[in-house]
Amino acid sequence: MARPTEHEVLAAVLQIRCGSLQVLAWQRALPPDSGRWSLPGGLLGDDEDVEQSVRRQLAEKVDLGEVTHVEQLGVFSRPDRVPDVRRVATAFLGLVPSDADPAVPPDTQWHPLAALPPTAFDHAAIVADAHDRLRAKLSYTNLGFALAPREFTISALRDLYVAALGHPVSATNLQRVLTRRQVLEPTGAVAPPGPAGGRPAALFRFTDHVLRVTDAFAVLRPPTGPPSGPGEATRVVVP
Amino acid sequence: MARPTEHEVLAAVLQIRCGSLQVLAWQRALPPDSGRWSLPGGLLGDDEDVEQSVRRQLAEKVDLGEVTHVEQLGVFSRPDRVPDVRRVATAFLGLVPSDADPAVPPDTQWHPLAALPPTAFDHAAIVADAHDRLRAKLSYTNLGFALAPREFTISALRDLYVAALGHPVSATNLQRVLTRRQVLEPTGAVAPPGPAGGRPAALFRFTDHVLRVTDAFAVLRPPTGPPSGPGEATRVVVP
Repeated sequence: MARPTEHEVLAAVLQIRCGSLQVLAWQRALPPDSGRWSLPGGLLGDDEDVEQSVRRQLAEKVDLGEVTHVEQLGVFSRPDRVPDVRRVATAFLGLVPSDADPAVPPDTQWHPLAALPPTAFDHAAIVADAHDRLRAKLSYTNLGFALAPREFTISALRDLYVAALGHPVSATNLQRVLTRRQVLEPTGAVAPPGPAGGRPAALFRFTDHVLRVTDAFAVLRPPTGPPSGPGEATRVVVP
Repeated sequence: MARPTEHEVLAAVLQIRCGSLQVLAWQRALPPDSGRWSLPGGLLGDDEDVEQSVRRQLAEKVDLGEVTHVEQLGVFSRPDRVPDVRRVATAFLGLVPSDADPAVPPDTQWHPLAALPPTAFDHAAIVADAHDRLRAKLSYTNLGFALAPREFTISALRDLYVAALGHPVSATNLQRVLTRRQVLEPTGAVAPPGPAGGRPAALFRFTDHVLRVTDAFAVLRPPTGPPSGPGEATRVVVP
């Protein structure tokens, strides 16, 4: 009943650029789907697991040092997702902070999610899932750290959340909620005044740069200490 | 570089039985790992995706009508996870309510997670991941619905949370938090008095039987309505 399958890994790497949420993709030069845009990735190698594979293959497109968070998104396995062969994909979400500008190869570009060019295979569905995961985790974790520069004004952070969520967000409420949940803290410094002058804005930073659920029911926490978040920055995590 | 891979699906189906969190497994009669206990599952078929496959293969071991929640847990892909072949697994978490007692085949039994018999391959790691996911989601979603009977006293619900989390939980705090988050509601009825007599205890139920994040930052919600939870009961969801 089961013919041999190929297994590939694919990464939807998202970054907020010029105020819009964008995804990294490369243009296929050969069939199938030549001319269409593919997510970075490729076949699983014999001596690696999917986490090692996605990091190896992402490194061919972008400096991994700029990717602050990588997590498994899910398995895409429709029998007809790729023509002629049975190929199962493990998809990942990757995030790059808004102030990075990693070098990418000539065939590779950032594309706004709101104006994706024609994508290969089921990659548009993977991008949509990545966007859904990002929106969900912004709402119950500290994942904003992976989209933001190390230091930022609340107004700049609000703009990042607006771009990622796709709806208006109040800067005042954002600061209040993220501070109460100990996600944000002031650095003590202020931003240089903008062209319009005015009062200098306080700078903030994320308290952690590893993923954690920010508001687990206190009553359900273990008696000693908070639930530990997984790993260091850019470690591949399964949510 | 990439030899053909097999792809399998595996399910860690958890249920609280006799006050302890247990997992469904079947005993292997043949090598490799004969005599050891395996999670239900098997090779991905040619005409199905992993969600269809896990439901088909689970149905060989347990009445799917009793499985109230199934979600992708992650991909297990160490090159040496199964001897002689390259086999990648998509693992799922399944949950069965504590008052169900589904029939299972003769080779299949429930085992307390605290006293697992020798397990096949990397299945113990999958069970550990399933337990971690369950603990995490009990703390920021309404996932308790999938472990509990349709109606229950707070004291009985507390016992389920204690079994799943592995640490003490206050019934008073549990009721307060889950009520405030609109996860629980009273049915208006009371439980029959126990052998010790005393005041009859109020019965409660979960307000929803589909997974949702119960306390997304209100400030990050879309302007109209709450974020919609995925699908109907027992639909396979990716978190």
